[in-house]
Amino acid sequence: MAIEGTTEVRQKRIRLGMVGGGSGAFIGAVHRMAARLDDHFELVAGALSSTPEKAKASGAELGLDPSRSYSDFKEMAIREAKLKNGIEAVAIVTPNHVHYEAAREFLKRGIHVICDKPLTSTLSDAKKLKKLADESDALFVLTHNYTGYPMVRQAREMIANGDIGAVRLVQMEYPQDWLTENIESSGQKQAAWRTDPSKSGAGGSTGDIGTHAYNLGAFVSGLELEELAADLDSFVEGRALDDNAHVMMRFKEKNGQRAKGLLWCSQVAPGHENGLMVRVYGTKGGLEWTQKDPNYLWYTPFGEPKRLITRNGAGSGPAAARVSRIPSGHPEGYLEGFANIYTEAARAIFAKRNGEAVDPAVIYPTIDDGMKGMVFVDACVQSSKQNGAWIKV
Amino acid sequence: MAIEGTTEVRQKRIRLGMVGGGSGAFIGAVHRMAARLDDHFELVAGALSSTPEKAKASGAELGLDPSRSYSDFKEMAIREAKLKNGIEAVAIVTPNHVHYEAAREFLKRGIHVICDKPLTSTLSDAKKLKKLADESDALFVLTHNYTGYPMVRQAREMIANGDIGAVRLVQMEYPQDWLTENIESSGQKQAAWRTDPSKSGAGGSTGDIGTHAYNLGAFVSGLELEELAADLDSFVEGRALDDNAHVMMRFKEKNGQRAKGLLWCSQVAPGHENGLMVRVYGTKGGLEWTQKDPNYLWYTPFGEPKRLITRNGAGSGPAAARVSRIPSGHPEGYLEGFANIYTEAARAIFAKRNGEAVDPAVIYPTIDDGMKGMVFVDACVQSSKQNGAWIKV
Amino acid sequence: MAIEGTTEVRQKRIRLGMVGGGSGAFIGAVHRMAARLDDHFELVAGALSSTPEKAKASGAELGLDPSRSYSDFKEMAIREAKLKNGIEAVAIVTPNHVHYEAAREFLKRGIHVICDKPLTSTLSDAKKLKKLADESDALFVLTHNYTGYPMVRQAREMIANGDIGAVRLVQMEYPQDWLTENIESSGQKQAAWRTDPSKSGAGGSTGDIGTHAYNLGAFVSGLELEELAADLDSFVEGRALDDNAHVMMRFKEKNGQRAKGLLWCSQVAPGHENGLMVRVYGTKGGLEWTQKDPNYLWYTPFGEPKRLITRNGAGSGPAAARVSRIPSGHPEGYLEGFANIYTEAARAIFAKRNGEAVDPAVIYPTIDDGMKGMVFVDACVQSSKQNGAWIKV
Amino acid sequence: MAIEGTTEVRQKRIRLGMVGGGSGAFIGAVHRMAARLDDHFELVAGALSSTPEKAKASGAELGLDPSRSYSDFKEMAIREAKLKNGIEAVAIVTPNHVHYEAAREFLKRGIHVICDKPLTSTLSDAKKLKKLADESDALFVLTHNYTGYPMVRQAREMIANGDIGAVRLVQMEYPQDWLTENIESSGQKQAAWRTDPSKSGAGGSTGDIGTHAYNLGAFVSGLELEELAADLDSFVEGRALDDNAHVMMRFKEKNGQRAKGLLWCSQVAPGHENGLMVRVYGTKGGLEWTQKDPNYLWYTPFGEPKRLITRNGAGSGPAAARVSRIPSGHPEGYLEGFANIYTEAARAIFAKRNGEAVDPAVIYPTIDDGMKGMVFVDACVQSSKQNGAWIKV
Repeated sequence: MAIEGTTEVRQKRIRLGMVGGGSGAFIGAVHRMAARLDDHFELVAGALSSTPEKAKASGAELGLDPSRSYSDFKEMAIREAKLKNGIEAVAIVTPNHVHYEAAREFLKRGIHVICDKPLTSTLSDAKKLKKLADESDALFVLTHNYTGYPMVRQAREMIANGDIGAVRLVQMEYPQDWLTENIESSGQKQAAWRTDPSKSGAGGSTGDIGTHAYNLGAFVSGLELEELAADLDSFVEGRALDDNAHVMMRFKEKNGQRAKGLLWCSQVAPGHENGLMVRVYGTKGGLEWTQKDPNYLWYTPFGEPKRLITRNGAGSGPAAARVSRIPSGHPEGYLEGFANIYTEAARAIFAKRNGEAVDPAVIYPTIDDGMKGMVFVDACVQSSKQNGAWIKV
Repeated sequence: MAIEGTTEVRQKRIRLGMVGGGSGAFIGAVHRMAARLDDHFELVAGALSSTPEKAKASGAELGLDPSRSYSDFKEMAIREAKLKNGIEAVAIVTPNHVHYEAAREFLKRGIHVICDKPLTSTLSDAKKLKKLADESDALFVLTHNYTGYPMVRQAREMIANGDIGAVRLVQMEYPQDWLTENIESSGQKQAAWRTDPSKSGAGGSTGDIGTHAYNLGAFVSGLELEELAADLDSFVEGRALDDNAHVMMRFKEKNGQRAKGLLWCSQVAPGHENGLMVRVYGTKGGLEWTQKDPNYLWYTPFGEPKRLITRNGAGSGPAAARVSRIPSGHPEGYLEGFANIYTEAARAIFAKRNGEAVDPAVIYPTIDDGMKGMVFVDACVQSSKQNGAWIKV
Repeated sequence: MAIEGTTEVRQKRIRLGMVGGGSGAFIGAVHRMAARLDDHFELVAGALSSTPEKAKASGAELGLDPSRSYSDFKEMAIREAKLKNGIEAVAIVTPNHVHYEAAREFLKRGIHVICDKPLTSTLSDAKKLKKLADESDALFVLTHNYTGYPMVRQAREMIANGDIGAVRLVQMEYPQDWLTENIESSGQKQAAWRTDPSKSGAGGSTGDIGTHAYNLGAFVSGLELEELAADLDSFVEGRALDDNAHVMMRFKEKNGQRAKGLLWCSQVAPGHENGLMVRVYGTKGGLEWTQKDPNYLWYTPFGEPKRLITRNGAGSGPAAARVSRIPSGHPEGYLEGFANIYTEAARAIFAKRNGEAVDPAVIYPTIDDGMKGMVFVDACVQSSKQNGAWIKV
Repeated sequence: MAIEGTTEVRQKRIRLGMVGGGSGAFIGAVHRMAARLDDHFELVAGALSSTPEKAKASGAELGLDPSRSYSDFKEMAIREAKLKNGIEAVAIVTPNHVHYEAAREFLKRGIHVICDKPLTSTLSDAKKLKKLADESDALFVLTHNYTGYPMVRQAREMIANGDIGAVRLVQMEYPQDWLTENIESSGQKQAAWRTDPSKSGAGGSTGDIGTHAYNLGAFVSGLELEELAADLDSFVEGRALDDNAHVMMRFKEKNGQRAKGLLWCSQVAPGHENGLMVRVYGTKGGLEWTQKDPNYLWYTPFGEPKRLITRNGAGSGPAAARVSRIPSGHPEGYLEGFANIYTEAARAIFAKRNGEAVDPAVIYPTIDDGMKGMVFVDACVQSSKQNGAWIKV
């Protein structure tokens, strides 16, 4: 493939607010870059912190109009809903336990929600949020960002097209090493809330990264989980939540084919930074993708040599191309994948705004994907408590 | 490391017989090359086939004295035991169901046995063989050949030295793709006996390759399995034995540290030829080794960059060097690793012959490793039948 | 490294214009995304095409005020220079032969120039531009974008710190395959101008990608080229410019150490998309970086195992961190590297705007780097015409 | 490909002698293992060292009959030629400067010679040896062992079949790092003779490894070198011979297509153990092979995804299969490749012995390949002395 540009079609930017993401937060900055990359959003309001001074300072850093820099997300929802040019969408980038209440305030006022995962910290919150989202006219977008990678889209399209036949196996893993030692007690902020059940919910590694791996496996394979058996551990002394999980899975039969899966997530595996990988094997071939080399997709048609499909290179199709910005051979990364979720959301929001139907090619993770993640965590915890009994989901 | 030779010390070659391994067999030829590489063995007798004409023809092909080319292993054992220069050792390279009876005949006559894995086709045969081997003065060597790879030895040594701290996780996998379709019914010979319970035993992929993965994980980590939970499948229509297995493991506590494991073996994963891999993670670091790139060992001391240790290169120690023949940067492969099992066996046999103690550095898989493999297969099958219940081993 | 955010400090956005980059252009869209990512620029004017209708349509697509959408860059320079809130900087993203005249109009009116590479299409234009840039108070930034990759910065810093001792060898390559066949005659737009001497200049692959490889080698090693010997080819029938070049290099002595280099660039090497790679070897170690895996830097301290340094992972230092946005293990790519050039430019422009000195840590390619690229191309062409004679630069 | 054995056809073993290769030598042991692997040779005599005591001790170590353990190769040639069961072939594994005289003594007595590379230490010796070999009825086999790797054979076959179209580019490299520092003066034996012009000849890295890279490029591509331009260095203080070489090459036109090449060999590139690599690009595709992963061949048909062909896997053909011993997915290495040269030699010797024509499929490097290597070294040295002038070969 030679190098060719793509046309950017201009719509008036979506007015975006943000809850969480004040100074020093990691994921807030990621959401802002993702929102900015394709120029479909403009950040105009925020409740960037619940500490008023910090909220104010963070708003100033980001150039927000001080009158639209809030320290309370509910106040923000109420005020913005009344403004003539109030926000049309809000990004929720707080720790998990705040997701539900924040999302509720915006959804019920018809403001689209783009929410970080996992959906909530408890399954009961998730169910309430699901109800709210279903009833709301506003969109609910969950940033299971890895589904935005072009080669993940490519894999999904190939499987849907039957390129590997009927799926038999979905092998998922997401090892990390950053919690190998107890850094939460010495106050490392990202570690502290992620290992605290009151903020994270019932799942540690399962909630933080296991949901990503499971979501990716399901997204790519097109399969639905039926039941799972899990063995969870908290290897690090004094840690309340799981930091490693081994999960066996059984998927619902599809087109007469039953499939199995294996999922490993870990925060205590030295040598892995964000080793998310998904491998899918069917009756006619196999596909392998790993996040650290995201522009590659390995494809083996059974009985033929393994092929390395590159983003926008030969063999890469339209599902990848529509979420890709540059020619093959020039790598795209995490931010571009994340930005794709925002851009897909923008396409849906534009359609809403214009009273049009959303292009069926638009894909973003929904409240239902969020529910599945919560059910997965809950099932993992239950199964592990019952010594690995199979739990239907 | 610069390029330097090693000294070969000469002992009179060990007179070797072979059971199985006639024309067209894969593993027989491998054993012969392995035995020959370091020049410690000389093949002088064989019961290469149970079909007399084939046995005779195969013996002629290999240059055996016709009087020592047998079609019955028992006759061979009896005759060779009486010869002045009869065989000192026998390699048993038949399908699994023959291992027990063949090994018995030689062991009870004091002839050392080098036997292919898995140990036998049934657990009860295995127990009888274990008893025989324990009582015999002859050595019993099982060719879990992957333990012969220098970088596998290196990994084991590093873990024993505490380089990754206390082990928490042992992740094993051995995917293949050659049984993705039903080739056994069309008579493919290697597939036919491996998928036939009367020849292979109760385990399909678990017996053929799962035992290798488990053996490797245990060898490298130094851990003992306590219990496992397994989910086995026969994905291919009409196949009696498992062709895919997902196994969760719990190891016995060691030095106050409990550890967990995950094992995946498959014969239906397109894109994998012999994808044996073992990854071990501890409190202070991680190690990763994969058979397709056997001269590399990835080592991550926690908090430091990942290091690529190469066979005989910087960071590679004596455990690897003593089973390695050439300088770093020139790859060794499967045959060299297999030959190391033979050479370790030869060192033990020479010691026996000379009435000396075996050098404690000598390592080869024993009857006990074989028993563990049989117990593993049995536990996998039992657990799967009980819907993944944990089975103590 | 755990996951932590970085603080974005807000300055008023730089008002940016663009010359070239109308609908369907590849590199214009890249510049716009790069300018947007860190939110330091706002595109407010453009001469996006010299065809008035296309200029107008492209401006509308990008949301430009129609009064600031020009079809003539000179008119744009004149008008914008007079506007109260006229552009502060302009991005020039046209084919090479337009660079000089466009840059001239803005530089002489004190508008900062961010210009695509190579500098110009002729050496004489380059010299004139150099004079203008030296005399102007405005900044001149050349988008040798690969120098923006964090691990390229890391490599440069390590070499400057002496981590590989005195440099002996700099091996550069940039193979592509998109011009393996004659696609220019069938009107492929990107190919057409790149293979046309009147638009591209004297160098084909040497100018388009050889300059990148050379720039990268010099940037990372800190060495100055002394002379080169080149063998250029136009393998494809009917092609006027080189599509492959082999170049031997000799660098100026540094700290008593002379160094050599080898450079290969090609547009006819099937299997390579954008295979830019630089490898540097010194008296105490070696470093290897390749663009297709840009988040990795291979480092071998002589006599120790090879280490894989990852962006922001262990062993990655401040030079990489200051141009990196997200934690280790989440890949960044081409756009982020490109954006780093814009952000470094922004830092310099902010300093100018505020009457402050530019932070010495700020690095961007300058007019001098552009001159070196032009001299390199000229020397390659001369040397090749003289059958590979050494040409001093 | 499933796992299947190959039939070994038995011929009476070839009686082999060895010159050089006493205790502590690296390459002698390699030759012996290579000779032994397929069981076609039996070592029965040796002049393993020119020091009588060492020769004797080394012979004893290898189990030679003391009466056939010589300290003088000429005496050995004379005596063995007269013995009824004297050696049929001799392996010459001394430093380079001994090759000519040793080979002469055996060739003129009709004893086949298997000689290490480079052919000799001087071009004049090489020419004399070429004359002798051409006149002799005995075979002359040069162990350019890398041509024995199955995937190298595969690459050669694919190019001959036109799979990549007409060849345009042959890129060769062989970097090492073991001579990064001056270890020869402290007496490291392998380094000492290799850096000594009186033993090695006029080329250092060019002779020791450059010849391998060049031989491989020519072997795989099927092209003939026409001229070269070289820049040689001795980076290490006090070293008389080159330890790094940059070489530009022009090949003779073939089927109307001219081709170019680039060769880099180095002994001072930290991070490379034996980094031999060859990459060939043609009008329709590209091939890439690297010695450290010898079981893989990367193949890109232009415009299609890159394919990973594995030894004996899908896409691997008969040229690889006939020099391969085990199924795909089980790696073969350096010794197996080396053994292939011996086995090809054995096939030719058997044919001679039986008065049959040699199977045209048999391939081994000949005296002519040796001459080409010598001419290459000579041209590199000449060109470098003439400041990189093109030297016709």
